[in-house]
Amino acid sequence: MILTVTPNPALDLTWHVDRLIEGGTHRADAGAARAGGKGLNVARVAHAQGSAVLAVTTAGGRAGEEFAAELAASGVPHALVPVAADTRRSVAIVDRTLGDTTIINERGANPTDLEWAALIGEVVERLAAASVLVVSGSLPPGAPETLLPLLIRVGRDAGVPVIVDTSGPALLRAADAGATVLKPNMAELVEATGIADPVEGARSLIGRGAELVLLSLGADGMLAVTAADLVHARLDQPLAGNPTGAGDAGVAACAVRYAAGDRDPASILRLATAWSAAAVLTPLAGDISSRWTELEQQLRVSHPDPSSFRKDPS
Amino acid sequence: MILTVTPNPALDLTWHVDRLIEGGTHRADAGAARAGGKGLNVARVAHAQGSAVLAVTTAGGRAGEEFAAELAASGVPHALVPVAADTRRSVAIVDRTLGDTTIINERGANPTDLEWAALIGEVVERLAAASVLVVSGSLPPGAPETLLPLLIRVGRDAGVPVIVDTSGPALLRAADAGATVLKPNMAELVEATGIADPVEGARSLIGRGAELVLLSLGADGMLAVTAADLVHARLDQPLAGNPTGAGDAGVAACAVRYAAGDRDPASILRLATAWSAAAVLTPLAGDISSRWTELEQQLRVSHPDPSSFRKDPS
Repeated sequence: MILTVTPNPALDLTWHVDRLIEGGTHRADAGAARAGGKGLNVARVAHAQGSAVLAVTTAGGRAGEEFAAELAASGVPHALVPVAADTRRSVAIVDRTLGDTTIINERGANPTDLEWAALIGEVVERLAAASVLVVSGSLPPGAPETLLPLLIRVGRDAGVPVIVDTSGPALLRAADAGATVLKPNMAELVEATGIADPVEGARSLIGRGAELVLLSLGADGMLAVTAADLVHARLDQPLAGNPTGAGDAGVAACAVRYAAGDRDPASILRLATAWSAAAVLTPLAGDISSRWTELEQQLRVSHPDPSSFRKDPS
Repeated sequence: MILTVTPNPALDLTWHVDRLIEGGTHRADAGAARAGGKGLNVARVAHAQGSAVLAVTTAGGRAGEEFAAELAASGVPHALVPVAADTRRSVAIVDRTLGDTTIINERGANPTDLEWAALIGEVVERLAAASVLVVSGSLPPGAPETLLPLLIRVGRDAGVPVIVDTSGPALLRAADAGATVLKPNMAELVEATGIADPVEGARSLIGRGAELVLLSLGADGMLAVTAADLVHARLDQPLAGNPTGAGDAGVAACAVRYAAGDRDPASILRLATAWSAAAVLTPLAGDISSRWTELEQQLRVSHPDPSSFRKDPS
């Protein structure tokens, strides 16, 4: 079972407007509200592709009730730790004219120490049945710095590989705490490591203890970096669509391969890149297009020279 | 008592972002959620200024629960008609860098005919104690065209003046149904009447039966137009601030004067323009600054020649 933890969930709203004008007043057609957060997106994708999952997160207040109701309706197995503070909201504003999506995420309220302890307790209990632990997404402002390392350590202590998708200083802390796989994008990697070269930056995380770094390059695909290996997968042409949730789909693929015992960077990278690309073709984060098998066949997978990424690190 | 009806209420959220970038992803600090809608703003302002009010509107779903809880905490007397559909949401995105506010309003779901009948029943019952009826704001998409005329007629049948703040074809229907006061802005007046000249446009509404048209001109103040009179009130300099809710504050002032038996266009216009301006100085719709008395003293009130507004009807 793939166990996902979402420390900072959100009730995701999607609004469609004719044309978003800064400073203007708009009428919006509201889509259905959805239980969101990166770990939940990972669980949704893996569940939809037939894997056993359990999504652990928090819920509080009336937004939390709506969050819980939607999650229950989704059929994704989950365990919610009740918290006093309201679950935050997030809104994606889709501009029908330009096709752009503008995303606004409330920062979220920090649970109490007791509530965090309950979340960790839930994870520890569920780890007995887990084959991989995924910790994904931001932390609420004010969350204890020890939280992410603690989650990683309870996973590793249970003998379970831990995949972490986070950013900022938490990325380095995750590497130091023993995360098995890290999945930054280029901007996050440069920001956290201060190293402009993608392969060197990824290897600095491996030097801290990670086994594999999956580095998303947007339209240029994805890199898998290990101590000994470097693999690049990409499509010939970028896909038009909604990139929100593409990284989560890649993490879901990685979790599915790890849960199956696969440790081959090229094999993991292929599925992660295909699912990421297939997520771009769907309007909602947490979904991937059934065209992923076709996309996987179109991937160009290479073992490039590390220096080939030095020219244009953006 | 001032009775306000809000046919399309909203749970208003306010989010502060550093800089709103179309197509970007933002972290937002969320302000408190608030029960919103134009009729509620009118009731809040009149209540805060010491008038007896009763705000009638609908509430449904979890957003409706949050709406009801905030309204109860606000202390504004109210009666909520339960509806099955979720109360819509509205978000104001405040750009800290530019100071702009971008507003997105969900359209809202149309109550059933039975729920509309319950709302009208509530209004009829409360009209016995009312000295003025205010119907403010949009209608949900699909709302019966007869709703607004019906609300106006039950008010007039009860011998109560009816102030209507609406736009589009509903503005003409309101005039035809016997609304006592209408409060369009220039764009709404031109759109509804097809007449570019503000005084001619306002008089066309009076020709349909209205007694007074309060025409908001934004930074140029406000006009009061009756069959025989034309009064203009404005400040020398525009105020910087949040114009959302300025029109509602003007309607609140008009309701307060009507409830006091005042029918003098100049007197009504003075208070309406002062409260409108004072609303610009506060961050939330439904509040006005206590500086309104000072602003009222600074108003320039004139009886201009109607032709003086013909040049620049925007």
